[in-house]
Amino acid sequence: MTARGDTRARPPLKARRAAALPDRVARSAAASAGESADGIRKWLRQRREQASFAVDRIPFEALEDWSFAPGTGNLVHRSGRFFTVEGLHAVIGEHPDQEEWQQPVIVQSEVGILGILAREFDGVLHFLMQAKMEPGNPELLQLSPTVQATYSNYTKVHQGASVRYLEYFTDPSRGRVHSDVLQSEHGAWFHRKRNRNMIVEATGPVPEHEDFRWLTLRQIHELLRHDNTVNMDARSVLAGLPVRSTPYALHSDTELLSWLAVRRAATPIRSERIPLAGVSGWKRGEFSIDHEDGRYFRTVAVSVRASNREVGHWTQPLIEPRGQGVVAFLTRTFQGVPHVLARARAEGGSTDVELGPTVQCQPGNHAHLPAANRPRFLDLVTTAPPSRIRYSALHSEEGGRFLDSVSRYLILEADESDAPLDAPPGFQWVSRDQLAALTRYSHYVNVQARTLLLCLNALEDGV
Amino acid sequence: MTARGDTRARPPLKARRAAALPDRVARSAAASAGESADGIRKWLRQRREQASFAVDRIPFEALEDWSFAPGTGNLVHRSGRFFTVEGLHAVIGEHPDQEEWQQPVIVQSEVGILGILAREFDGVLHFLMQAKMEPGNPELLQLSPTVQATYSNYTKVHQGASVRYLEYFTDPSRGRVHSDVLQSEHGAWFHRKRNRNMIVEATGPVPEHEDFRWLTLRQIHELLRHDNTVNMDARSVLAGLPVRSTPYALHSDTELLSWLAVRRAATPIRSERIPLAGVSGWKRGEFSIDHEDGRYFRTVAVSVRASNREVGHWTQPLIEPRGQGVVAFLTRTFQGVPHVLARARAEGGSTDVELGPTVQCQPGNHAHLPAANRPRFLDLVTTAPPSRIRYSALHSEEGGRFLDSVSRYLILEADESDAPLDAPPGFQWVSRDQLAALTRYSHYVNVQARTLLLCLNALEDGV
Repeated sequence: MTARGDTRARPPLKARRAAALPDRVARSAAASAGESADGIRKWLRQRREQASFAVDRIPFEALEDWSFAPGTGNLVHRSGRFFTVEGLHAVIGEHPDQEEWQQPVIVQSEVGILGILAREFDGVLHFLMQAKMEPGNPELLQLSPTVQATYSNYTKVHQGASVRYLEYFTDPSRGRVHSDVLQSEHGAWFHRKRNRNMIVEATGPVPEHEDFRWLTLRQIHELLRHDNTVNMDARSVLAGLPVRSTPYALHSDTELLSWLAVRRAATPIRSERIPLAGVSGWKRGEFSIDHEDGRYFRTVAVSVRASNREVGHWTQPLIEPRGQGVVAFLTRTFQGVPHVLARARAEGGSTDVELGPTVQCQPGNHAHLPAANRPRFLDLVTTAPPSRIRYSALHSEEGGRFLDSVSRYLILEADESDAPLDAPPGFQWVSRDQLAALTRYSHYVNVQARTLLLCLNALEDGV
Repeated sequence: MTARGDTRARPPLKARRAAALPDRVARSAAASAGESADGIRKWLRQRREQASFAVDRIPFEALEDWSFAPGTGNLVHRSGRFFTVEGLHAVIGEHPDQEEWQQPVIVQSEVGILGILAREFDGVLHFLMQAKMEPGNPELLQLSPTVQATYSNYTKVHQGASVRYLEYFTDPSRGRVHSDVLQSEHGAWFHRKRNRNMIVEATGPVPEHEDFRWLTLRQIHELLRHDNTVNMDARSVLAGLPVRSTPYALHSDTELLSWLAVRRAATPIRSERIPLAGVSGWKRGEFSIDHEDGRYFRTVAVSVRASNREVGHWTQPLIEPRGQGVVAFLTRTFQGVPHVLARARAEGGSTDVELGPTVQCQPGNHAHLPAANRPRFLDLVTTAPPSRIRYSALHSEEGGRFLDSVSRYLILEADESDAPLDAPPGFQWVSRDQLAALTRYSHYVNVQARTLLLCLNALEDGV
């Protein structure tokens, strides 16, 4: 217990929290200068026109280098790289409420980097956004993070073309990290998929490139008002920006974490991978693997031609959801503190229960059910009068894995009559700041809730 | 964006953080009144003598209600309850550093409650500790949480005998929750095992029972100086008590989380369950399943007789490690702020990389290796002069699943020559307060590090 003189060791200690950052983020969100959203969208259109892109559906047998593995029937790439489509035996919860089903699932255990580079210009933080094509995107080209790199990309295991600006995310000496966390992605379609979501502020000059633009958070917030413009990866990463935080909420942080612990204990996720060939309830055709009742999603194959990607032509499988989704937060503001009604979500491919939106579903999957068995609040959300709608836009999920996976993202004002303070089972009121704080940790806020959090931040910042 | 009058909704908001709690915890840790550690240990001995316990090794075929399932060879209970012993195909990391092996593993996906009830007496927080027998404990009976309940116990699915004091942990109206989080347990022996670690402060009187004692944190800290006295569950739960926190550290919280994100991305855990019968490198005998080289652990069976448990006699499998473990933190104090040298640990049965001790191993497993291939800092820790040793005691792991799983837990003072500021790859300096703050979230601090954190808290509080 003697200190041995080491207490005199005086390396410079750092503040554990970057106190000034939330204010700097707020300043960027309030910045009024710079090009309009229309101008930036015009630039995106131009980038789209300057390259030529074609995405065509093809039969599985026309896939190059991809095939159904003998035995398992898993859809795999010859190199063993990228991802596989396998089967999932999903088991969630405890008896008597246990749910169990089988489905195809994308397996991609490599952890990639989704990185946004920041830099201050004239005292205002800007973010380097990329105009990037992904074959499954409705508009093909959307506003993306500075870097989207697979683990193989960034460790150069496969000696591929280097990813532009990647060095800022792999070499700590080039900047200051503002957030860095492994975030989960869609548990309905991925098996335990995670990516590193990073924001790094460059400390020196950054070279320009025609596919990239420096935008303020205000500009990005405005672009979020437009359909299919800001891609999922960008939304997920930007949701990790710290906000000015209120130390009061309807429930204390401990109460919130305790509520989540109850949900996690009650609905453990016991899912296991199984061979795709053995998945029951799904049938494989020439062009797609479909659910027997035509619900949920299909697995398809596409051929892609692009003039501005490292590789000009390739083929790949994609997951194509059946019909448009609805993703919504009900919000209420208590004594000036904004809150959302979060739902604890256990998804088949997830590692753990996470906080998700109030409503997150494809209504078509539930249309055959009696009204009482459809997702809670879905009716409220889809029939809300315009006066209740604080935010509404279409956004698509990751275009490298999902084809036309579009959902209407909504933020709706609620009141005691439709969303009472005493939240129904499985739901809880969470302040915006509590949700934001939890994005610093893995497996607390799901990918759809991260998009809505970013949109809510835009609203709170007055866009 | 209109507020619709809801901003005038004025439910009472709460402070997100319980600001007074760390001071109340510190007061309990400084409380000098009450019975001595020797007196409490005498009570433990008396409880042991008043009941009669016998634990005997038996051949697998003498197990009652347990058997090797046809086909898989998994060791299962007839009821499907409790746990199973299955196989694990462990795959960790990325090429070229990927590691892969097979082993038996305990599968228990139910999430139990480990709960400690707190109450203030004369202005000082006390904790209700139980004298509890577990068949694998070296002393059989140790100081345990108020409640150790499986999910079946606490949801009464199986109509078993009720667990004493359980209602404080399932009915929020009976107390105030101070911590509640699903914490991982040993990734070397369990497949994704987690328990809810809870501390609840009772708001009303609590009935007495002869197997339970109210102890101050000071008394518990003193008991931690004694071998095999405070059980693993109690250590794990108490590590979640909030400490008075310093806002400065060698690395900012974001830098620390970013370092962990790098490790998590580099060493994804891809392990899958496999049939126990198919595990390679292990052989099943009459009394045990052993590693071919006699390393790591064995799976054995025991018969238990106890006069004071709900069930007076039962048989069960246990995991028995080969040889004593070493678990140690190297510590340094920078400008008065205590730090530990944490190691990012990826274990075969874990969900994710977590912060672990500087050293955590069974030296016997590495004795056959050249010195350079043995765990880093193991030599330093096992040969440290007494002047360096701040803390040393033997503690055992969970006695309901592990037989004589004893490790020497050490906290050692280090300096620049043996543990430089610039930590070696895979290691990082983490302040005590940063480690404590991370115990609020799942999968950040492993179970061995939680024990050491509690011991370090005791040291910092002057015990």
